[in-house]
Parts: sequence; structure tokens; C-alpha cells
Amino acid sequence: MMNTLPGSKTAVNIVRVRRGEESQRPKRDYVVTEEPLEIRLVSGRETRQLAVTMRTPGADFELTTGFLFGEGLIRSREDVESIRYCVDVQDEEQLYNVVNVSLRNALPPNMRAFDRHFVVSSACGVCGKASIDAVERRGIAKPISNHPIPAETIVNLSDQLRQAQRLFDVTGGLHAVGLFDSQGQLLAMREDVGRHNAMDKLVGWALMENKTPLTDCIVLVSGRASFELVQKAAAAGTPIFCAISAPSSLAVRMARRFEMTLIGFLRDDQFNLYCGDERIQN
Amino acid sequence: MMNTLPGSKTAVNIVRVRRGEESQRPKRDYVVTEEPLEIRLVSGRETRQLAVTMRTPGADFELTTGFLFGEGLIRSREDVESIRYCVDVQDEEQLYNVVNVSLRNALPPNMRAFDRHFVVSSACGVCGKASIDAVERRGIAKPISNHPIPAETIVNLSDQLRQAQRLFDVTGGLHAVGLFDSQGQLLAMREDVGRHNAMDKLVGWALMENKTPLTDCIVLVSGRASFELVQKAAAAGTPIFCAISAPSSLAVRMARRFEMTLIGFLRDDQFNLYCGDERIQN
Repeated sequence: MMNTLPGSKTAVNIVRVRRGEESQRPKRDYVVTEEPLEIRLVSGRETRQLAVTMRTPGADFELTTGFLFGEGLIRSREDVESIRYCVDVQDEEQLYNVVNVSLRNALPPNMRAFDRHFVVSSACGVCGKASIDAVERRGIAKPISNHPIPAETIVNLSDQLRQAQRLFDVTGGLHAVGLFDSQGQLLAMREDVGRHNAMDKLVGWALMENKTPLTDCIVLVSGRASFELVQKAAAAGTPIFCAISAPSSLAVRMARRFEMTLIGFLRDDQFNLYCGDERIQN
Repeated sequence: MMNTLPGSKTAVNIVRVRRGEESQRPKRDYVVTEEPLEIRLVSGRETRQLAVTMRTPGADFELTTGFLFGEGLIRSREDVESIRYCVDVQDEEQLYNVVNVSLRNALPPNMRAFDRHFVVSSACGVCGKASIDAVERRGIAKPISNHPIPAETIVNLSDQLRQAQRLFDVTGGLHAVGLFDSQGQLLAMREDVGRHNAMDKLVGWALMENKTPLTDCIVLVSGRASFELVQKAAAAGTPIFCAISAPSSLAVRMARRFEMTLIGFLRDDQFNLYCGDERIQN
């Protein structure tokens, strides 16, 4: 059995090809590690598979905690009785890919939501509004912030995230999520091959550190703002959500409904404000 | 009821903020539309929900076809009896968000794979190797290509994809997947707020046009190469997979096992070759 966790990067032999160059150059390089993580819920003698996600190894317990929180299965770290790697696996490659969780409170009754092919008894179509309504029904409160943030502070966040990323990422293949305080100080940064996982890791960290709700905090994602990412940040109580790249229509609607501040295209000394302008000071 | 499909972009009012500028500039802008699509399987009197995915409206039947193919539920377009929007919905916003599919052949027995929380009876951990083994067990053949491609042709693909994208994308929020022939001619391009959906749309188009397997073809994705994207391309019989950005470790392993050519960082007149070098000619 391996005694070490699989790394977040994997060495590969590659060939670099450049236009107009006759010779191809063999090279040793790194790619980001992508491995499945299975999250299992243990209750009594029964073990159920909750989810399998393709993720970058590392911070697996944070990822699990954040995932459970994002899905509404836990509300605080106290709801988690234990999280550990399953050691009862068939070969060593699987050793750090299965996490067993047991919860202190009984499983909520809506496990049906995890079922992807339940029988549809009547017309119950989906739409953007219904997706946001469903988040609201979970009782997620509107985030709180008391300090308006200078635009200057916001503009500086993207460089800070990139610098923090450079320390960790030599693969070019990682999504990052950074958490900042109202002064623009970086509190934590998490990376993953999957954008939702990076957010789950960050929220999981915040939960385990008892820092939720993230009152007065700013979240910055290295890519785009999707509905699901904004929803996860809202669930953790983040008032200001920033993205280096574009937001989607449903991300904007979600942020508006929850009275969050949504910022997109935060790069090159400027940004777009989609809603919640009152939190930003010029 | 609306008579038109929801658009792929949505107008929003934003404020643009620039460092050092006192005044904020209100502006009308567009964001990419993100809406849930529910895919339902109709068999006899029973209707089951197969999946809900957040997608950009448009090409929904291609998306559905490609999704069913990627999940191994159909092998050709002949397996699809009908695909239509469900009109039995509660409000008009839902009208184009539910697709009913009926298949010609009986449902395969592994619906369990869609179940996210089945009871785990014994140790059956997941790992990268097991994920690739599972694809192999589905009987996906190794892709065929007879023409080695000049490096020059590969290098030109990224500009072509960007140009095609510029025509469609005014939101900055869309992932693109392009399909090229062995001469480097663009055959089709599909975009979506979700990278997997863009690939599903493209593969669904190819299936509906009877172009699978994609012998001698090249697929180019605007972002990173993940395991799931390479797997979807492999299922469609693509010999050469290119990404503008980085591949993951499992994408490399998947491409190697299926004897595909994997290219990453295809930009600025150069690229990295991760495997399948013999298909590229200098």
C-alpha cells in the first residue's frame, strides 16, 4: 500500500512542436492530477455512495465537507461525526480515492434529489427561476456585509490570486478560488481540476475553521461565474462574488435574488458590476 | 406560451468600473444564457428523469443525442425513436427546458449507473485505471486515422476556432468545441456554458448527420482536456484530440490507452504532444 497521498501533479514525457521548427523537442513536463473521489455515507451498517467526482487529490476532507454543505446535507462542522479514507479497497491505487463520512444527525429525507432517474409523476419542469427558488427553499440567508469596499481593493484581487496560484500551479490546468477579507487580504486559496471542487474545498475549509457565514468576505474564481458556483458561495454567506471571466445569465439572476454583489471580467485594472453596486465605493 | 426558443445570450444592465476613474459607466451588455435542461426518458406510460444539466439553449436535441451516446444508452441515431420538447409544463419559462426522448431499443439494464447513491455492498473503490477500464468495457473501439497530419495544419486550428467563435460569442462566457477534417477544414463548431455540453452537442450533431465514427477527424476544445471530454471524443471515434489549454493526468492516460493523439497548449504557433506522435508530421 502507498503511504503517501497521490500528488496534485503528475510527471509526463511530452514533445514540444513549434511552427517552422524541423525538430521536435522531447521534454519532461507536469500535468495536473485528475482522479475520481468517491464520497460514501456510512450510517450504521449501511454504506451508500453519495457521489463520484473527478478531482485533484489533496484537501479531500475539505472537499467532502464543502460538498455535503453545498448539497444541504450538513449545516455546520458539528453535523459531521467523522471523515476518513476508506482503507478497505482492492488495490493501492484506490487507497486515497474513497472517503467515508458519517453524520451526527439523521440523513435528511430528500435523498431523492441525488437520484438522477426518478420517475416523474407529473409535469414538474425545470427552469432558471425554479432552480433559484429551490436554493431559497433551503433557507439560505442573504449575505451580510457592513463595509463598502473601495474599487481599488477589488481591482487588486486578481493579481493576488494569480500570485498565489503561481506558487502552487506548474501545470496550467487548475481552477482556483480565493477568499479575501474586506481589506482585500487573501485568507485562503484552493485549486482543483474541477471548478466546483475548488469552491467546495474552500467552503469546506471555511466550515472546518468555523468561519461561516463568510460575512464581509469576497470570493474570487479564476474562471467564469456559473449558477452553481454563485449558489455555493451564497450558501456559505458570501456577500461579494468576483470572477476573472464572464458570468452566466443565471449567475446574475441568482446573485440579484440573494442581494449579492456580482463582479465579472475582473482583470486589466477594471471590472464589470452586474448587481449589488452599493457595496462598491469609487 | 412563448413561441420562440430562449436565446443563447441575455441582455443585462451593468456598470463598468476602471481603476482611477471617478465615474462608473452604466452600460448595456450581454451574458451567456444558462438554463437547466431536463432530459426525460419516455417508455410506454412511464417517464423517467435521466439528467438535468445547466446548458446554453440551442441545439438541445443534439445535446440530448450526444448525452445519450456518451452515457452508452444509444449507439446510433437509429436507436432514437423520437426527441421532442415536452409541452406539458407549468409555466412558459419551462417550455423549452424539458426534452422527452423515446428509444427504439429497450433500456439497457445499467440504469443503476445513473443512481448516485446506491448501496455499496463491498469494497469497489474508484481510481483512474478503473475509470478507463469502464470505458473499455463499453466496447469503444480504438479510433482510426490513415492520414498523418502536418504540424502546420494543427497549428492553424486554434485561429480557426477563435474566428468561428467570434461570430457567435459576444458574451465571453462560452466553451467551444470544433470538429475538423484531416485537411484542417472546420466541419462544425458548438458552444455552451458547460464544456461537456459543447462536446455533447458536437457529437450529437455528428450522430444525427451519420458522421460517426469520426475517422481521420480532429477535435479541438477551447479550454482544458479532462478525462470526461477525451472519453466522449473517444466514444465518437476521434483519433486526434487537441486542447487550447492543459490536459489532466487522466486525460493523458485515457488517450494513451485508446491510442489517440493528445495535444495540449495549442496556441502561439506551438503545441505539446502528449501521445500518439506518429499521427503528426513535421
